[in-house]
Amino acid sequence: MGKGMSANRYVCGYDFGTLSCRISVNRLENGETVFEASADYPHAVITEALPESGARLPRDWALQDPEDYLEVMTRLTRLALEQVPAEEIAAIGTDFTNCTVVALGSDGQPLCADPAFRARPHAWPKLWKHHAAQDCAARIERILKEENVDWFGWYGRNVSSEWLFPKLLQVYEEDRAVYDAAAVFLEAADYIPYWLTGKLTRNSATLGVNAFYNPQRGYPSAALLERFSPGFARVLEKLGGQVLPVGSRAGTLTPEAADRLGLLPETVVAVGHGDSEIAAIGLGMTEPGSMLMVMGTSTCYQMIHETERAFDGVCAIVKDGMIPGLTAYESGQPAVGDSFSWFADNLLPEDYRRQAEAQGLSPLAYLDRRCGALRPGESGLIALDWLNGNRSVLMNYHLRGAILGLSLDTKPEHIYRSLIEATAFNARRIFDGYEEAGVAIRRVYAAGGLARKSPVTMQLYADILGRPIYVTSVANSSSLGAAVCAAAALEEERGSLETFQRLCGQMIHYDTTVYTPGPKAAAVYDELYLAFLEFHDLMGKHAALYSKLGEIQKAATAFE
Amino acid sequence: MGKGMSANRYVCGYDFGTLSCRISVNRLENGETVFEASADYPHAVITEALPESGARLPRDWALQDPEDYLEVMTRLTRLALEQVPAEEIAAIGTDFTNCTVVALGSDGQPLCADPAFRARPHAWPKLWKHHAAQDCAARIERILKEENVDWFGWYGRNVSSEWLFPKLLQVYEEDRAVYDAAAVFLEAADYIPYWLTGKLTRNSATLGVNAFYNPQRGYPSAALLERFSPGFARVLEKLGGQVLPVGSRAGTLTPEAADRLGLLPETVVAVGHGDSEIAAIGLGMTEPGSMLMVMGTSTCYQMIHETERAFDGVCAIVKDGMIPGLTAYESGQPAVGDSFSWFADNLLPEDYRRQAEAQGLSPLAYLDRRCGALRPGESGLIALDWLNGNRSVLMNYHLRGAILGLSLDTKPEHIYRSLIEATAFNARRIFDGYEEAGVAIRRVYAAGGLARKSPVTMQLYADILGRPIYVTSVANSSSLGAAVCAAAALEEERGSLETFQRLCGQMIHYDTTVYTPGPKAAAVYDELYLAFLEFHDLMGKHAALYSKLGEIQKAATAFE
Repeated sequence: MGKGMSANRYVCGYDFGTLSCRISVNRLENGETVFEASADYPHAVITEALPESGARLPRDWALQDPEDYLEVMTRLTRLALEQVPAEEIAAIGTDFTNCTVVALGSDGQPLCADPAFRARPHAWPKLWKHHAAQDCAARIERILKEENVDWFGWYGRNVSSEWLFPKLLQVYEEDRAVYDAAAVFLEAADYIPYWLTGKLTRNSATLGVNAFYNPQRGYPSAALLERFSPGFARVLEKLGGQVLPVGSRAGTLTPEAADRLGLLPETVVAVGHGDSEIAAIGLGMTEPGSMLMVMGTSTCYQMIHETERAFDGVCAIVKDGMIPGLTAYESGQPAVGDSFSWFADNLLPEDYRRQAEAQGLSPLAYLDRRCGALRPGESGLIALDWLNGNRSVLMNYHLRGAILGLSLDTKPEHIYRSLIEATAFNARRIFDGYEEAGVAIRRVYAAGGLARKSPVTMQLYADILGRPIYVTSVANSSSLGAAVCAAAALEEERGSLETFQRLCGQMIHYDTTVYTPGPKAAAVYDELYLAFLEFHDLMGKHAALYSKLGEIQKAATAFE
Repeated sequence: MGKGMSANRYVCGYDFGTLSCRISVNRLENGETVFEASADYPHAVITEALPESGARLPRDWALQDPEDYLEVMTRLTRLALEQVPAEEIAAIGTDFTNCTVVALGSDGQPLCADPAFRARPHAWPKLWKHHAAQDCAARIERILKEENVDWFGWYGRNVSSEWLFPKLLQVYEEDRAVYDAAAVFLEAADYIPYWLTGKLTRNSATLGVNAFYNPQRGYPSAALLERFSPGFARVLEKLGGQVLPVGSRAGTLTPEAADRLGLLPETVVAVGHGDSEIAAIGLGMTEPGSMLMVMGTSTCYQMIHETERAFDGVCAIVKDGMIPGLTAYESGQPAVGDSFSWFADNLLPEDYRRQAEAQGLSPLAYLDRRCGALRPGESGLIALDWLNGNRSVLMNYHLRGAILGLSLDTKPEHIYRSLIEATAFNARRIFDGYEEAGVAIRRVYAAGGLARKSPVTMQLYADILGRPIYVTSVANSSSLGAAVCAAAALEEERGSLETFQRLCGQMIHYDTTVYTPGPKAAAVYDELYLAFLEFHDLMGKHAALYSKLGEIQKAATAFE
């Protein structure tokens, strides 16, 4: 290893999460993390009343104070500079929760900083989990369906209230003064690079995920936006700025930003990225055909591929959505760890809890142990993992979970295992959708709490998917991914797949646990999967039964 | 009320159960029980080895010692005679578990009493739950299906290993010496009256239930029996004796029986009856259209009606099967209380158990209380009560239970209530089968432990069936029924409906709790029943899925 200047150059990654920001400082040469820290936003999430004015917020609102972002970023950078000299930090990259939306006034400052608007809720950044735009989302979804918009399939024919246009439409209809005063609406993911560089760029990844944006097609047409609400087409005037793929260079620091952070003005700044989409970069996932399962309470499937095709079971198909040059596909399974916890919280018998305690295990770990001792097919059960609806191939929120095959001999671990198996069978069904569409899955990664903590679950997934699963152990994959974006921006004006592949090879190193399918178990699960599919398709076809149950349940609240 | 001799005349009923016999002595005039007692059989159920010889029994065998019956009957009669003088006991009636089969030698004694056969298992009475004739039952079922025998629908196209011909075929094939030495095979229900009177009678009720017998048609044809096994047709020679409806007079006591019991030789003896079939008489159920649900671990449906029709959901249709002049229909639901206990035993969380203890309630009673506080439809669940198969309209033992509609908000009491509802929905489905066949159900009675102990269950049944349910509180309905049979035999040579109706009116008096459907709940359940039916029919149509799961489960035992 050379001892020259270049060997000591560093990049910084900042991962802006829901409640805090995490910084990591990494050696360019080999990715070594030389500093890492995180700090909470002083105002956290604003859900009840605005700071200072005390203006009350309605239900489902979730705002943030944009000054928190800068304050925390400054504090973390100053801490890092105690370890690493500013002149050795060559570039910085950032990612942000998405879709979090900031309104800027004509002076380029967040509108909520303007005393004239400080007491108006709509002037404040709407956090991703601001859900008060649900009516707007429903209307947009209805219109996109009515218009039979061809790219709507790219979004699973579903509009989330968390996305950009529902949030903007809400401002437009509920506070025209704020709307009119906003010169620019932008995602927080792009606001940070804008504040750092003074240049308005937008990353095509989060725009693609949250704003119906596509590099070829751009934003939705003015005619379509006009249908959302009369006059709303002109919102496009507030969505300017150069759209760039992630890993591109946004610019260098403004004197003010450099001064506040303590960095040199020539420090290169990468364009923004989304916090969940960037994690795959931090895991070094750059080969087309890589599928990442982020497994926790729910599972988010993220895949990169050379194709760009729509098919059932995908909730987002975004060109350059995770890494430039490849299409990002996302699928979702809304209740995974949540289902297992539901069982442990509601149906764990007393003697099981006692035995768990005696063995020093959590209830979930104890259930894992018991269900790990069972043989494939021994339970006689198959389940459907729709305890919070189905958001993959059936895409129906009204669907609910089911267990089939109960007998007087059924034990708690049988049911628990059937719930794990159900999530894995549904994963296989999702994978089948990709494969059938010609979007070949070449390697499966798993990350998230469940992947780290439950070897039983992971082995079942390997057996049921019939594929090896690579479980990664990178704790700070998002901030590391942001550091890689910084390194990419340092090299080139415009992010490219080749650069990311080379940089990830250079900077990302970690241990991997591989779960390999057992051939006998996999053979049994091939059979059980057919049974699962039959039940899955049957209940999918009879989804009206669930809607009926839902209606009766709703009416029961009014029943005397 | 007169004070003459007749006012003080008594009848005795003996109910021979699996482990004990119960006697009741009742006043003829008004049915008042003046004495009641029970006593256990010394040898209980013989499942491991024969007494004296110690000959080992294979798996699934269940024998009894016929001397036990007489010994216990004698002991109980002697006890009764301490309260009531022998000359005031005018008649006795008996019922027995069925189908329990006794082999008699040419001397009229049980073959197992003969030293030459005492060490041979097949010489001993086979208790109803002797299940070692399963292969014979399966063969008979296959042949009856192949031959497309028209009366097979009267038995739900199913042959139980508990019935007469499978048990006889097993002797025929496994111990020809015993078979040849047996001059008579008869049900224990008929053996007791035979021992008492010295005259061989058979009651048409248990013959109809267990021996494919019908008063018009008689036994299965010799040609058919010959197909079961070559030479087996001649078994008919061992099935002689006059067949009489229940309530008929078998005769009077032999001097030996009178002497042993301490009764007068002129004491009238009624023909036998089955222990479950006789209970309805003890409940005074004599009106056509009466449906009795005997609700315990499982539910047995017994109905009497003027029609004689076959339809789905019935496992026995027997002319004069419960009471003379009416057809007895039986249906079965194999896991009712068993399902509720399964839930409480396996899935009751710790805090529920603690709260139950704090309130001084059993787990089931506590779950009842919690689920009784829910509104109809509130759970969002529907379940199928097939935890031990379906023996009603779908008649498929491979079917298994299911729960549909699970969400992350599902609570234990939701599932528990859905299990109760499932059994009631299935009851309604069974009732629909009767009604659609023109076998109108005019009044619903409920008896058994569940009916007595769980008002929540009974109210749910009333709401779901949309009918009032009359829960009876007669503890000794079988022995009381036997006493009524004795009274009938005292009056007439041959039992008749009119006599039973009059005698029941005279002798049966008890309190009834009536559960009446709540109109609002019933309306919600009318809707939920349609959802249940859809799910029920769907899974019934896809029964192959269960068979597949069952096969995989079976294979899992061999999986390494």
